[in-house]
Amino acid sequence: MRALALTEQGLTYTSDYPTPVLQPGQVRLKIRRAGICNTDLELVKGYLNFRGVLGHEFTAEVIEGAADWLGARVVGEINVACGVCDLCREGIPSQCRERATVGIRNHDGAFADELALSSSVLHRIPDGVTDDQAVFAEPLAAAYQIIEATHISPRDEIILIGAGKLGMLCAQVLKLTGARVRAVVRREHQAKLLNQWGIEAVKLADLPHNRAHLVVDCTGESGGFAAALDLVRPRGTIVLKSTYDGLPQADLTRAVVDEIKIMGSRCGPFAAALRALEHGLIDTAPLIEARYPLSDGLTAMQAAAQSGTLKVLLEM
Amino acid sequence: MRALALTEQGLTYTSDYPTPVLQPGQVRLKIRRAGICNTDLELVKGYLNFRGVLGHEFTAEVIEGAADWLGARVVGEINVACGVCDLCREGIPSQCRERATVGIRNHDGAFADELALSSSVLHRIPDGVTDDQAVFAEPLAAAYQIIEATHISPRDEIILIGAGKLGMLCAQVLKLTGARVRAVVRREHQAKLLNQWGIEAVKLADLPHNRAHLVVDCTGESGGFAAALDLVRPRGTIVLKSTYDGLPQADLTRAVVDEIKIMGSRCGPFAAALRALEHGLIDTAPLIEARYPLSDGLTAMQAAAQSGTLKVLLEM
Repeated sequence: MRALALTEQGLTYTSDYPTPVLQPGQVRLKIRRAGICNTDLELVKGYLNFRGVLGHEFTAEVIEGAADWLGARVVGEINVACGVCDLCREGIPSQCRERATVGIRNHDGAFADELALSSSVLHRIPDGVTDDQAVFAEPLAAAYQIIEATHISPRDEIILIGAGKLGMLCAQVLKLTGARVRAVVRREHQAKLLNQWGIEAVKLADLPHNRAHLVVDCTGESGGFAAALDLVRPRGTIVLKSTYDGLPQADLTRAVVDEIKIMGSRCGPFAAALRALEHGLIDTAPLIEARYPLSDGLTAMQAAAQSGTLKVLLEM
Repeated sequence: MRALALTEQGLTYTSDYPTPVLQPGQVRLKIRRAGICNTDLELVKGYLNFRGVLGHEFTAEVIEGAADWLGARVVGEINVACGVCDLCREGIPSQCRERATVGIRNHDGAFADELALSSSVLHRIPDGVTDDQAVFAEPLAAAYQIIEATHISPRDEIILIGAGKLGMLCAQVLKLTGARVRAVVRREHQAKLLNQWGIEAVKLADLPHNRAHLVVDCTGESGGFAAALDLVRPRGTIVLKSTYDGLPQADLTRAVVDEIKIMGSRCGPFAAALRALEHGLIDTAPLIEARYPLSDGLTAMQAAAQSGTLKVLLEM
């Protein structure tokens, strides 16, 4: 089958990747769409030393396996849990100590014609939701994880830093809480989109210090954390939504004196993300920057790596 | 009056510091005991550029002011709030934006014969609680702030790093939750005390990685945060109880991937601290390392600055 994979030779497109063999509990997925995420770009640079097919944002059709799934149009969560470790037993399978992660760790991903995946992580795509929308289910679920982990009051003032692929979804989710949301943008294109959704786009230099109840950092840059700490008010919360290159220096003394809460946040609730798409609460169409056939996957990855690029899709 | 004060000439003992003039709402306190805290040592080194009488842990008698307080034996909270800023109005006076802090910021402290203090921050010392116990009310309240800000389950495994003056109080408070508490110690003296209270004393190298539900860092050292991050489990919590010298490098990527919560924590509930002392739940006697008359305050500060020293008291 065709696949875009990380090998010892680096990122490779091949038309003869071995077709997956189903393990017990797995179904065979025919991939329809896939989205390129910043994590894919980091994996190419060597993050986690992953080898295998990339891709963890996708829509697919079940073409083999359990009868109750056959023919279903689905998305899939990315954490395939062991079910027996302490964290699984406590109901936190997304943090399973022995987990495989689709397209990221010990599990092939979706930049391919087919994927063998445990049916335990599948979600049916509601009829009214297109593939172009549902391919955002994974990052949108990650955005919903912010309000899964933190109570947001409609009185709150929220600032989002890093209005990229993930940030634009987070901004829309946060807007739904009723709180005032401002997003720090560097590009006119992002500002226009945000304004179109009724979200204020601002420059970092124009924001007051120590005033926001909640700051969400989607920058993936060390400077993002320092900026967040400068914006958050005493007893406020910083949510970290993207991983950092290197070890940021952190003014933890301010965190102590002003009793600030800093929360790392990763994968989230797919069911909530699919409901939001079904109800038309989240606008994904303008986030699609370009689309390529799988056979042009290498070009697609280059396009996605350009700074400021929103979502690049692969079509199988 | 006699006072131990920070002046342009550094730390100074004087017998002719001006007796405080009462402002509206204030009472005159005759100080009985005071405790030396690490923050006092940091202030001497230049932290916050404070000028004035040091000291924010004390017991006192009210000798002038509102009739309902006259003659009372009291302790006092250290944050004197403005009452009108956004944080005061939202019920967080300890984080008041315009606050004065006794012996720390814009307010004289308790290393003196007398102190003028707003009656709004006073707490009566219960009859059964001695001055030697009540002088720990302020740091003990700070220890109780851990369980004010974070829910602890009796199923939890807790590790405390930094078994110094504050850490020894935190360990005792945490033990009362029913959770398993282990304290990382460097000195035999601390280990003995902890064991006497039924708390496990351990070496950092003997602890497993990524297993603790809660890690409390009382070290005040950059390395303390890195150690805490190495010990806490996915979805676990780190509470930062002491300020840091400089800007620690922080592996915030691990915080994101493992969804770790990091909480700064400062002043806490005096009423809970006084109740715990009244009920004999917290053992303070062995934490008193030495006591000096106020006139030997300079010597007392030197003694307190020795690494590993527990509480040094001043008697007026």
